[in-house]
Amino acid sequence: MSGRLIVVGLGPGEARFLTPQAGEALERAEALYGYGPYLDRVPARNGQSKIASDNREELGRAKAALAHAAAGACVAVVSGGDPGVFAMAAAVMEAIEDGPEEWRALDVEVVPGITAMLAVAAMAGAPLGHDFCALSLSDNLKPLELVEKRLRLAAEAGLVIALYNPVSKARPWQLDRAFEVLREALPATVPVVFGHAAGRADARIAVVPLSEARGGMADMATCIIIGSSDTRLITREGLTPLVYAPRSAMGAAKAAG
Amino acid sequence: MSGRLIVVGLGPGEARFLTPQAGEALERAEALYGYGPYLDRVPARNGQSKIASDNREELGRAKAALAHAAAGACVAVVSGGDPGVFAMAAAVMEAIEDGPEEWRALDVEVVPGITAMLAVAAMAGAPLGHDFCALSLSDNLKPLELVEKRLRLAAEAGLVIALYNPVSKARPWQLDRAFEVLREALPATVPVVFGHAAGRADARIAVVPLSEARGGMADMATCIIIGSSDTRLITREGLTPLVYAPRSAMGAAKAAG
Repeated sequence: MSGRLIVVGLGPGEARFLTPQAGEALERAEALYGYGPYLDRVPARNGQSKIASDNREELGRAKAALAHAAAGACVAVVSGGDPGVFAMAAAVMEAIEDGPEEWRALDVEVVPGITAMLAVAAMAGAPLGHDFCALSLSDNLKPLELVEKRLRLAAEAGLVIALYNPVSKARPWQLDRAFEVLREALPATVPVVFGHAAGRADARIAVVPLSEARGGMADMATCIIIGSSDTRLITREGLTPLVYAPRSAMGAAKAAG
Repeated sequence: MSGRLIVVGLGPGEARFLTPQAGEALERAEALYGYGPYLDRVPARNGQSKIASDNREELGRAKAALAHAAAGACVAVVSGGDPGVFAMAAAVMEAIEDGPEEWRALDVEVVPGITAMLAVAAMAGAPLGHDFCALSLSDNLKPLELVEKRLRLAAEAGLVIALYNPVSKARPWQLDRAFEVLREALPATVPVVFGHAAGRADARIAVVPLSEARGGMADMATCIIIGSSDTRLITREGLTPLVYAPRSAMGAAKAAG
């Protein structure tokens, strides 16, 4: 079988984040599958088709791309950020596992990209410089109890927390609930970084203490980084503060409650 | 003050991972500071000096680069992978916080890169496709009790675990101890991915069940990804299996013990 499927990460926004490896994969592909706004970032090329689908149709898009590749084409599935972090690579794997046997024989490649938390961390200083976790608050793929449990255990472990998909239409109140859970486990002064549209022209960050963090400060283009009790804040006159995780972690977590 | 300091991530190996943003920063710098093997990856340029230092001298390197920038130069500190993940950005921030007041006024920028776990995950499938954490087993910057506590809580939370710096000269037995701790908390069948030299010509991965994971399978160029009880393995005839995290997490963690 000559079919090939490449899951390509574009990075968090502008072309300056696109790796040469990703650029070559996009060049090579006969067809590109993806969420419309991501496909729009890829310059049109003669003879290459673009098949756009809605943000919520990950599994359907993965299946369509796999079927196309299985017919002998070189197909790219385009993802924002890194395709392996809360993005298309897992949907493609899921489709392969549940799909026809021949899909397992396809040449499948994942091309990594700069994921949102790395771009937000770079804007803020080095808040992910020591142990951390990445959690998604997204939609209905995970029971709310599990989200809360993970937040509590992450705080107890002294991990810095990167929150993806912090705002969902189905649960607009969920982010405020997450801050509430974390306020029970962490000092009120822990810095929270709201990174909006990282890697895009309108990128901006805001840093507030956990006590002042509110769900309304985030939108669907925000990635949030919540410090641990080790996290340091460097104030600078006339400049945004720098937030970082010391390389030497003492892990002193305030007792819950 | 006209001085400028840019902390640049080269990505995990070859030039195909270097973003255009990072390439431009390297072009612009008058001086490059870094660990020798990372500096060797950057093509020599007329009029640009390279100041190499040992891997263990992060803080000293950061201070030297900041002092150079404070004298009015455009200086780059070069890091493998992403400078914000267990790398140079935190050391630079630490040096700024403890250094002379004028260092806070410097124009400081962090340029993100593909960090090792993303490159290893891409080779394996999509093991970081849902909630995960990144922990460093490195050296003496963290008490061993804290490492073990974090491993236990991460497993209890159902997080996939990426382990950086799994092998240290001072504690060669530490990785075996980590697997021992995890075997008490996770099913024996959980897939463990050993990613060696990700992004380099000699890159390779090995996937074994947790019950068979041994410290001797890793070296200093290895990043390890340990699945959760949700992690799936897709076997493929004549090909390495694909490992992925389902997008829908049920978080069923085996009770400890």
